[in-house]
Amino acid sequence: MTITPAVKAILDKYESDNPGVKGNLARILMNGRLGGTGKLIILPVDQGFEHGPARSFAVNPEAYDPHYHYQIAIDAGLSAYAAPLGMLEAGAGTFAGQIPTILKCNSSNSWASSANQALTGGVDDALRLGCSAIGFTIYPGSEDVFDMMEEIKELSAEAKSVGLPTVLWSYPRGGNLPKSGELALDVGAYAAHIAALMGAHIIKVKLPSDHIEQKEAKPAYEGTDWSAQSDRVRHVVQSCFNGRRIVVFSGGAAKGEDAVYQDARDIRDGGGNGSIIGRNTFQRSRPDALAMLDKLVNIYKNAE
Amino acid sequence: MTITPAVKAILDKYESDNPGVKGNLARILMNGRLGGTGKLIILPVDQGFEHGPARSFAVNPEAYDPHYHYQIAIDAGLSAYAAPLGMLEAGAGTFAGQIPTILKCNSSNSWASSANQALTGGVDDALRLGCSAIGFTIYPGSEDVFDMMEEIKELSAEAKSVGLPTVLWSYPRGGNLPKSGELALDVGAYAAHIAALMGAHIIKVKLPSDHIEQKEAKPAYEGTDWSAQSDRVRHVVQSCFNGRRIVVFSGGAAKGEDAVYQDARDIRDGGGNGSIIGRNTFQRSRPDALAMLDKLVNIYKNAE
Amino acid sequence: MTITPAVKAILDKYESDNPGVKGNLARILMNGRLGGTGKLIILPVDQGFEHGPARSFAVNPEAYDPHYHYQIAIDAGLSAYAAPLGMLEAGAGTFAGQIPTILKCNSSNSWASSANQALTGGVDDALRLGCSAIGFTIYPGSEDVFDMMEEIKELSAEAKSVGLPTVLWSYPRGGNLPKSGELALDVGAYAAHIAALMGAHIIKVKLPSDHIEQKEAKPAYEGTDWSAQSDRVRHVVQSCFNGRRIVVFSGGAAKGEDAVYQDARDIRDGGGNGSIIGRNTFQRSRPDALAMLDKLVNIYKNAE
Amino acid sequence: MTITPAVKAILDKYESDNPGVKGNLARILMNGRLGGTGKLIILPVDQGFEHGPARSFAVNPEAYDPHYHYQIAIDAGLSAYAAPLGMLEAGAGTFAGQIPTILKCNSSNSWASSANQALTGGVDDALRLGCSAIGFTIYPGSEDVFDMMEEIKELSAEAKSVGLPTVLWSYPRGGNLPKSGELALDVGAYAAHIAALMGAHIIKVKLPSDHIEQKEAKPAYEGTDWSAQSDRVRHVVQSCFNGRRIVVFSGGAAKGEDAVYQDARDIRDGGGNGSIIGRNTFQRSRPDALAMLDKLVNIYKNAE
Amino acid sequence: MTITPAVKAILDKYESDNPGVKGNLARILMNGRLGGTGKLIILPVDQGFEHGPARSFAVNPEAYDPHYHYQIAIDAGLSAYAAPLGMLEAGAGTFAGQIPTILKCNSSNSWASSANQALTGGVDDALRLGCSAIGFTIYPGSEDVFDMMEEIKELSAEAKSVGLPTVLWSYPRGGNLPKSGELALDVGAYAAHIAALMGAHIIKVKLPSDHIEQKEAKPAYEGTDWSAQSDRVRHVVQSCFNGRRIVVFSGGAAKGEDAVYQDARDIRDGGGNGSIIGRNTFQRSRPDALAMLDKLVNIYKNAE
Repeated sequence: MTITPAVKAILDKYESDNPGVKGNLARILMNGRLGGTGKLIILPVDQGFEHGPARSFAVNPEAYDPHYHYQIAIDAGLSAYAAPLGMLEAGAGTFAGQIPTILKCNSSNSWASSANQALTGGVDDALRLGCSAIGFTIYPGSEDVFDMMEEIKELSAEAKSVGLPTVLWSYPRGGNLPKSGELALDVGAYAAHIAALMGAHIIKVKLPSDHIEQKEAKPAYEGTDWSAQSDRVRHVVQSCFNGRRIVVFSGGAAKGEDAVYQDARDIRDGGGNGSIIGRNTFQRSRPDALAMLDKLVNIYKNAE
Repeated sequence: MTITPAVKAILDKYESDNPGVKGNLARILMNGRLGGTGKLIILPVDQGFEHGPARSFAVNPEAYDPHYHYQIAIDAGLSAYAAPLGMLEAGAGTFAGQIPTILKCNSSNSWASSANQALTGGVDDALRLGCSAIGFTIYPGSEDVFDMMEEIKELSAEAKSVGLPTVLWSYPRGGNLPKSGELALDVGAYAAHIAALMGAHIIKVKLPSDHIEQKEAKPAYEGTDWSAQSDRVRHVVQSCFNGRRIVVFSGGAAKGEDAVYQDARDIRDGGGNGSIIGRNTFQRSRPDALAMLDKLVNIYKNAE
Repeated sequence: MTITPAVKAILDKYESDNPGVKGNLARILMNGRLGGTGKLIILPVDQGFEHGPARSFAVNPEAYDPHYHYQIAIDAGLSAYAAPLGMLEAGAGTFAGQIPTILKCNSSNSWASSANQALTGGVDDALRLGCSAIGFTIYPGSEDVFDMMEEIKELSAEAKSVGLPTVLWSYPRGGNLPKSGELALDVGAYAAHIAALMGAHIIKVKLPSDHIEQKEAKPAYEGTDWSAQSDRVRHVVQSCFNGRRIVVFSGGAAKGEDAVYQDARDIRDGGGNGSIIGRNTFQRSRPDALAMLDKLVNIYKNAE
Repeated sequence: MTITPAVKAILDKYESDNPGVKGNLARILMNGRLGGTGKLIILPVDQGFEHGPARSFAVNPEAYDPHYHYQIAIDAGLSAYAAPLGMLEAGAGTFAGQIPTILKCNSSNSWASSANQALTGGVDDALRLGCSAIGFTIYPGSEDVFDMMEEIKELSAEAKSVGLPTVLWSYPRGGNLPKSGELALDVGAYAAHIAALMGAHIIKVKLPSDHIEQKEAKPAYEGTDWSAQSDRVRHVVQSCFNGRRIVVFSGGAAKGEDAVYQDARDIRDGGGNGSIIGRNTFQRSRPDALAMLDKLVNIYKNAE
Repeated sequence: MTITPAVKAILDKYESDNPGVKGNLARILMNGRLGGTGKLIILPVDQGFEHGPARSFAVNPEAYDPHYHYQIAIDAGLSAYAAPLGMLEAGAGTFAGQIPTILKCNSSNSWASSANQALTGGVDDALRLGCSAIGFTIYPGSEDVFDMMEEIKELSAEAKSVGLPTVLWSYPRGGNLPKSGELALDVGAYAAHIAALMGAHIIKVKLPSDHIEQKEAKPAYEGTDWSAQSDRVRHVVQSCFNGRRIVVFSGGAAKGEDAVYQDARDIRDGGGNGSIIGRNTFQRSRPDALAMLDKLVNIYKNAE
């Protein structure tokens, strides 16, 4: 497998990491149909933890089976598959070596009374399951965010030492941050920047709206037209060390295909590295999901 | 002891586990009168911790003696016996090798001011006592559930490494979850799914009612008739990785025999793996309990 | 599985061991066609280490496959199967839960320049592979025997703490001990006694001849007729704490069936617990081996 | 990357290993031009340690540069590249993710006064450098072989726990073994069998001659014609758990092309998994080496 | 301090090292009058350990004072100062931040009965004393070299993880290597290569003679004229990964100035990185030493 110049350019930006971390980033960036383009699509399936099984899978009951997700990620030629411990354990033997996996190491649930998550997996688990990265969520804004940051500081340091990169979900939530501000451009860019500052290798954020939430931040955004989503993506990428870190955007709740495609075009045009797209995948029938992922791959290949 | 195809099919689903874990699961699944059927009945005796001795045993004073429970589990041909540290220590020598045991590693009590439990046993204890698994309770919904999840994450990883599977009691309780919702179908399936995601090998939940508690979950359940208990069991099994994990259902408070038998038939018909049945066993006289367990075994053997 | 009085009587003699050790002894003593009799037949396959593959298996090429040995031990209804690390790893998943296994933790080879062995497995391996015991060889007489004894002291202590019994191969060899004395009655009884003194749970020695090797020991043996092999067995059993420890005898090189049967009758009549019989099993064709093992089982059952 | 049935069949034989180990074996078996065939060619460059730089590289001075070896392994489409610590460190960043690497963890040199090696790398090094396996040499026959075996026992157990397989070079040498016997068929098969018993995942031995060295082994080889090299390969494969372990054969000193090709055909026809071919690669000019490796790949693909 | 292209090119070759290691290498390479040239002169003062104080310092009694060496290294504008623990402790406070230091971590003495050294310093010492690297000696050829290699393997791994590079003195000595062969070209190149393979960052060897010691190596050296010392230097540099590692040459016993200068010119012309020059420094008077070092600096600057 010869690394393409596009991927080589990305790897070179991780200049403090050991070859193990670079090798695992390369494994993700060279896998699947987007392999070598510098773009990536990750399938995350942790919504069962967040929302429960029926809300996640009843619409497409095949998706109750962990093998379903491994298989669709492989068949669609995706870059990687991310899931919590039990989901990976239920397929890691059968699919060993077939798709890079990311162990999601913390998880919340619908009853959480604080904006926090529980540690549910670790670096030892990631190694024995053959994962290519660990994943973790922080909630900037939460009263518990310092605890979450300290957890990922420890976990990420351990992971780096054994050659595993960190994918950081950075979702503003909780504390004094109103619901209305969670998707604000300034807030999203800030959350992405925090992830970069924490030493994450791949940063996962939501697509931001054009709302500016923080009063103190408004002057910095005034005088620019933020109505184009691709421009907002570009600002988030800029906030991740001016493009020195991989940034992927989540798809959010299941929605119409056209909206999904437009999001991908905007991510691509704004310089984002790709999509991490769960519910919009597994809450469609398998043929519909494969058709949608095929089109997304083509968008990222600039073929559509 | 030749493994039956039914048991082999179950073991093959634990594809990330070492032969030690598989061997202990096989020990449980091949033991007693249901050995080889893929069904199991576990006797749990931790109610003394939960409710105190008199509430638990006064109705059948022989049951104050730990040997009583070992003996009835053996005589009834059950699959395994689960109890806290002291209960096992009081009989583990006498009954060594006669019945697989499960060390219940955390416990609550009647005065608990939070929905949490104390760690009261560990993997070292389980090994020195010759146990075939560890047991643990989490309370999804509780404000302390993240702590409980982090405890079992550590304990379960240690157990897996030395060949011991984990039985996870997942009982919704506490926090914002109203008492009325604890047995709701959506809540029970969610709790079972969380246990699977945590990497549990055997999942223990309560038989759910047809109530749907969570507003957000209602759409996922609408349009289906949930009045049959066997259908609700089937949904819980589906929520445990579509049947890739063993699921057993608890009997709850002592009740009439017919209700106990109907529960077992519904578990069986819904594809559940069996019952974990404590108070309904030891709060009956020994002859009555043996007769009831005999009938339950026959139900799971499809003989009644 | 109800323990028989015969097995219970044996377990009671291991009065300082924890229930984990007793449980694993019970697993071996209750397994297979001799289960419950207090007698046992163990299949050991470590001759590949000692003599190389062709000398061990060329006569019956199916035996090159590790699954062959697991399967014949199961099909013949033996008590346990003992082998080095790689041999167990190559079958432990397929046969998990079907036959108690013993991890042989040290091994020699044909080129060894000293009467010693290398550590090739450990307690962690035994746990992850689901073994019921560890096995180890010492060479009383060797200049290295103190090192070997110190190794098993450490290993056995660790094993006991996690519920694993120790099977100790005690084979006089090396140092000032002449080849002619290795099978002497006084030497064999002494070697067995050393194994008991080391804290072994199951002692494996060779059937002794009626030769008395040590000048100083001769007076103690004079005046007794040692011509009957069963009497010599009885003396070895006596030397293992007067029957408080399980003693099994090895079959040595492949030989005629009648000699094998006579050995078993003498072991039985002398109060030995059974045979550990490798080459005489796997160097016969599978039908012949099964027929021979069937007859041996019947001998130990007093049926022949 | 979908695993082929040929590779899946191999992975299934490693039934006691965790998904991490299986994934790394899959990485090697799916890489390069032989990816998916179940055959493999490994480039090992540790001769600088063994023989010094000039004896190794003067004939083709480009080979003094560690990048040269990475690049030729990639350009020739080989399965993996094996080298000592410093050699890997000098290229692991540049070539991260481009070729599976094997960290050779012990090494000898020309002045060694005993048949032994020094530990020069460890599992932590392998992880930080992103290696897919560790490599290690034992010298069956050596007076130090017990020490070497105990070193790899520890190292291999650690590697397995973090998902790294072990490649074991098993080269008879030293002690009472005469030089003339090092390549004997009985000795080579025995060395391969020892590697399998030690729990190695990939076994590397030399192509054996038809000489039988050990007097005791002669009867086991008599009556069979061992003049065909492919039959000798078949016997070595049989000695590695009847084909349950991957076996590769080393090329030895640089020699004529036709001899190299005939060796490969014999390895293929005898059921071996491939070649590990160092000096015959880097002691040729780059064009000649690429042409030779191209032909070897075709031989293993049954195309020549 | 802007890194020069010459130094940047060197640092880029340490592609598996973390920024801490690179930073310390840069500190040495950018210090003093040769800073930025890619050349370096190191002052080592460990001869007190090797030969005793009087043999080392009586000729220039100021040199008994550890401050003397720090001061002359600073005043002469050298790259770094290397010494054993006590020597550094006696000046590290006074001269903190004034000159990069290298803690020599093992040492021999005149009474040593084997070709080995004692560990006399560690990574913790190096950190608390503010050192820029650790130093270590191995004796290729010695019967103890495997032990020495295993010591530096451990020490170097620890050092790398905390950002400290390793300077490896590789001096052939002991075992079957005759005194006459210690300076042979093949032997010196081999020793340098071993240091590179061990993962050393800076390799220190002696200037080799044109003698070829090893019979097996002779063919690789035949047909080339090795009479020019600069060509021999070039071969040693080639043997250190074709120039991917820094190589410095030691001056040996005190000798005439002209010989010292010619050595430096040959090192420079052969592509070596510089000199490590102890006795030729401190066994001269301070003015003489400063004058000599000034001239050496100019030679490496190509100014003489």
